[in-house]
Amino acid sequence: MYGYAQNKDDYLQRLRRVEGQVRGLHRMVEEDKYCIDILTQVSAVTRALESVALGLLEDHLGHCVAQAIAEGGGDAAEKVREASDAIARLVRS
Amino acid sequence: MYGYAQNKDDYLQRLRRVEGQVRGLHRMVEEDKYCIDILTQVSAVTRALESVALGLLEDHLGHCVAQAIAEGGGDAAEKVREASDAIARLVRS
Amino acid sequence: MYGYAQNKDDYLQRLRRVEGQVRGLHRMVEEDKYCIDILTQVSAVTRALESVALGLLEDHLGHCVAQAIAEGGGDAAEKVREASDAIARLVRS
Amino acid sequence: MYGYAQNKDDYLQRLRRVEGQVRGLHRMVEEDKYCIDILTQVSAVTRALESVALGLLEDHLGHCVAQAIAEGGGDAAEKVREASDAIARLVRS
Repeated sequence: MYGYAQNKDDYLQRLRRVEGQVRGLHRMVEEDKYCIDILTQVSAVTRALESVALGLLEDHLGHCVAQAIAEGGGDAAEKVREASDAIARLVRS
Repeated sequence: MYGYAQNKDDYLQRLRRVEGQVRGLHRMVEEDKYCIDILTQVSAVTRALESVALGLLEDHLGHCVAQAIAEGGGDAAEKVREASDAIARLVRS
Repeated sequence: MYGYAQNKDDYLQRLRRVEGQVRGLHRMVEEDKYCIDILTQVSAVTRALESVALGLLEDHLGHCVAQAIAEGGGDAAEKVREASDAIARLVRS
Repeated sequence: MYGYAQNKDDYLQRLRRVEGQVRGLHRMVEEDKYCIDILTQVSAVTRALESVALGLLEDHLGHCVAQAIAEGGGDAAEKVREASDAIARLVRS
């Protein structure tokens, strides 16, 4: 069980909504909607995904990483490293 | 007809793929996959969406904005303003 | 003369302010300030720089790119391409 | 003493370099350099600042946050929350 388990239903619902938004983008292109309106909608989808990612990350730090630290094994430093790499990918994408 | 018309099929295909990636994210959460693996996949989807947006923007500048400028009416300044706002939303999201 | 010439003094002033903010960051590290407070300040500097970039870009589109398009030579497509590459670098950084 | 203390000299050196880069941007505007060249340089400065922020964040997670968790007090959850807010500001800026 991972950190996001407690909010699993919420994440599933948000990702379902993002899937619908992407389908909406597809429809906009198909129906030749105005470029700028499509771009506005792409920004909204990106923000929704980012928000899911930030939630997952906070759950991960507060559970998986916290547990590794609390257990005091050599795993803690590796978990911090791994989380930092994920943060870097988010910041740079 | 807007700037992206010439690449419409390509955009439709890429958005279909993004939709599949989001569905894949939903499945990862459903199957309790590891947080970091989900985050890696979110970054990939975000980058794919960004790439669609950058393509749409270039098509928009090269066609819709260029046409407004070439026609020389008062519409040109407004088009540049509108595109700049869309760019700001992309940069900040 | 480039697109930003009309706002040159404004840009010079904003960049002087950013320089001061970076010097402030240096001082915060030197004086062992709290990590999170330094990070908050880094985000502020990044946003200030982004805002300068978005301004320069809008001036560039409205002048340099618009002029190349209005002149109707083969230079226009190249200018749009070049601006699009700069936008991509901003979005991805 | 905070998490970045061990790398303090490195951070001071990098921030000094960023300060020089911002001064370089000021000079480019003053000397009427080409917009796109200035934008390329702004992206480089933004990336350098982001890299400092990601380093500070990793040090913070590995020391300040890890210590709060290891001490097991009620402070741990608050530290994770605070770090997550800082990450959100970085991702959105």
